[in-house]
Amino acid sequence: MNAEIIAIGSELLTPFRQDTNSLFLTDKLNTLGIEVEFKDVVGDNREHLVNVARIAFGRADIIIFMGGLGPTEDDLTRECVAEALGIGLKRNSGLVGDLYKWFAARRYKMPESNLKQADVLDGAEILPNANGTAPAQWLETEWAGRKLTLMLLPGPPREIKPIFEEQCLARLRQLAPAEQIATRVLKVAMMGESQCDEIASKVYKKYRDIQTTILAGAGEVQLHLRGRGKTLDAAKAKVDKLVDELEDALEPHLFSTAGESLEQIVGYYLDMRGVSIATAESCTGGLVAERITSVAGSSRYFLGGAIVYSNDLKADFAEVPPLLVQEHGAVSREVAVAMAEGIRKRCKSQLGVGVTGIAGPGGATPDKPVGLVFHALADGKKTEVVQRNFPGDRERVRWYASQQALDMVRRKLSS
Amino acid sequence: MNAEIIAIGSELLTPFRQDTNSLFLTDKLNTLGIEVEFKDVVGDNREHLVNVARIAFGRADIIIFMGGLGPTEDDLTRECVAEALGIGLKRNSGLVGDLYKWFAARRYKMPESNLKQADVLDGAEILPNANGTAPAQWLETEWAGRKLTLMLLPGPPREIKPIFEEQCLARLRQLAPAEQIATRVLKVAMMGESQCDEIASKVYKKYRDIQTTILAGAGEVQLHLRGRGKTLDAAKAKVDKLVDELEDALEPHLFSTAGESLEQIVGYYLDMRGVSIATAESCTGGLVAERITSVAGSSRYFLGGAIVYSNDLKADFAEVPPLLVQEHGAVSREVAVAMAEGIRKRCKSQLGVGVTGIAGPGGATPDKPVGLVFHALADGKKTEVVQRNFPGDRERVRWYASQQALDMVRRKLSS
Repeated sequence: MNAEIIAIGSELLTPFRQDTNSLFLTDKLNTLGIEVEFKDVVGDNREHLVNVARIAFGRADIIIFMGGLGPTEDDLTRECVAEALGIGLKRNSGLVGDLYKWFAARRYKMPESNLKQADVLDGAEILPNANGTAPAQWLETEWAGRKLTLMLLPGPPREIKPIFEEQCLARLRQLAPAEQIATRVLKVAMMGESQCDEIASKVYKKYRDIQTTILAGAGEVQLHLRGRGKTLDAAKAKVDKLVDELEDALEPHLFSTAGESLEQIVGYYLDMRGVSIATAESCTGGLVAERITSVAGSSRYFLGGAIVYSNDLKADFAEVPPLLVQEHGAVSREVAVAMAEGIRKRCKSQLGVGVTGIAGPGGATPDKPVGLVFHALADGKKTEVVQRNFPGDRERVRWYASQQALDMVRRKLSS
Repeated sequence: MNAEIIAIGSELLTPFRQDTNSLFLTDKLNTLGIEVEFKDVVGDNREHLVNVARIAFGRADIIIFMGGLGPTEDDLTRECVAEALGIGLKRNSGLVGDLYKWFAARRYKMPESNLKQADVLDGAEILPNANGTAPAQWLETEWAGRKLTLMLLPGPPREIKPIFEEQCLARLRQLAPAEQIATRVLKVAMMGESQCDEIASKVYKKYRDIQTTILAGAGEVQLHLRGRGKTLDAAKAKVDKLVDELEDALEPHLFSTAGESLEQIVGYYLDMRGVSIATAESCTGGLVAERITSVAGSSRYFLGGAIVYSNDLKADFAEVPPLLVQEHGAVSREVAVAMAEGIRKRCKSQLGVGVTGIAGPGGATPDKPVGLVFHALADGKKTEVVQRNFPGDRERVRWYASQQALDMVRRKLSS
């Protein structure tokens, strides 16, 4: 059983906007064993939309139309799908009443044009939209001898997501094949893609019925696993077995087996072990603290931090002796260590993080190139320090450095 | 003259990967007056790809195929385009030689399968690829009586971008209509979309030949303007006139007329006026500092900052009197002011920023709901403070708050 996702809207054909709903829909469809085989973007153009719909009717079983359900002249999805199928549209009096109520509750006068949102395809079910005025529609029909399932869904993410999860998924489960798909995402920090694949492939190649995709980003490699089974439990059991083997093989680089971010995992360990932390950052400019505090509840373990660009502030906030900076330079192993130890003492936390480096594009010297970063982690007994030479531009160097610092915290706490 | 962009690769039909090259290509095509009317994503499947190609031949003048030019069995673009057009592919001996050289230079043995990268469509021009082994191809041809221009381009961004800019754009300029398109992006901070449109529409409605699109994000509204002219200069002159009028109308909310980010503009003003800054953050957890320091050269004006979650650190780093916190609470107008003034004094900077609030999901009280944030800006004479009640989740509240704080700095310096 295959699906086609059609995103409708001229703004999606500009350089500024992109369909992202289809990633969410694909994820949900895959769990039912339904593969997405085509995705299209088409503008608010009657002829184009009718033609794109007809092409989809000829090649897909499930066709999802997203967007174009608003009240303006540009919103053509209802009319065009009706035209493509050769069926009618009827104004639904219940929906008309709902529209008047929606506007009355907000003390607005309803524009006449909104009434077209009450038009329903012949034979379609109405799927209410709790977050907007455009109801969705579900239609099971035949076209040129093929059975089709059509969905007309609103474009805004906060409207389409609950409608799809709460109303479409259960209906699709009735239609979907007996096979179910289980997926898992494993994440590995501070390891190259080929290095990771060399280790992982020895394991996943033994599991021929599980599809493994490797994706690499800045300082992180992800392994996406997909396995099929008669039931979701059977599919999960297969995938879980591979996950266990990969966990052993990728120790200690692997940090997540359920898709969590590195800062979520770090937060989980800090919270679970009741350990507090503070940060002193130079080249990352607050990024390490920002990532730690992006996790809800981080005030339980994050006490505070300092961003110390100037040498005066390195001394004042992180107790870095000025002589140390003079002797070794602000970007040095010694200063990173002093920053981690100083901020720890100053904030009275159990762990202290220090990061100093050259993010670029300026600031490099012959022996200290752009990308050179020192990362230190102090626990009151000993202080670890890691030197790295990261490739890439300012944004990438800063991201890598924050990734390295967080990974050091994770490794200390997970062991 | 219209274009269709076809992204090829089964990974683009998973929940994990998305075509982003098409945004870049669309931007470049638009400057030549070429509109993108269709975008498609299709997997590594011979039948699907041939059909999608034929559909495109029937409706677009310029068709860009992206991806599927690699050496593996899954890389089918060359074969499928040839089949769809009903023309042949010939192995090019020059390209075969280049491939051997490429591998020899890297001291690898070339796998036999790589040879297919030397296959060229009959009548196509070869466009060399400086960053990979897959050369691109350019073909002007006819199909069912229609003139077509086809491009076969590699998928990786660092390969497709230089090829398109350096080799395709000049060729397209020969084919493109006499009309040229000029674009400008205006950005407005801390103003609602409808409020912005109410003011802006009175202006842009007078310019019927300039297309204006309004896009709203968190704490920012963007106006995208596109105007056409016989030459690029004529098109630019038209758009510039509208920009001037919009600048006047949207004062003082407008912060950029050339697409810069708010932190870039803030950095520009700080640098130009030789003003230094320091930050004390609670709920934003370092985001304000991180955004300021993401700009290259920010060490010239950013001295440092503190992230003060605990009350002890508010006193230690930002000199907030503990009694003030006891009396008004950590999330209060008074504490925001004290943070801004304290960090300014402590860092010996000319400006000091203080942000305290409740990012959620926890931490709310009956009179201090999630989303309540106080933002203060001290300059040594007077301290401004702005209270906001932001909607949304932790991520949005933090982003809005950083946007508000940066916008206060911008307004102070731009006046």
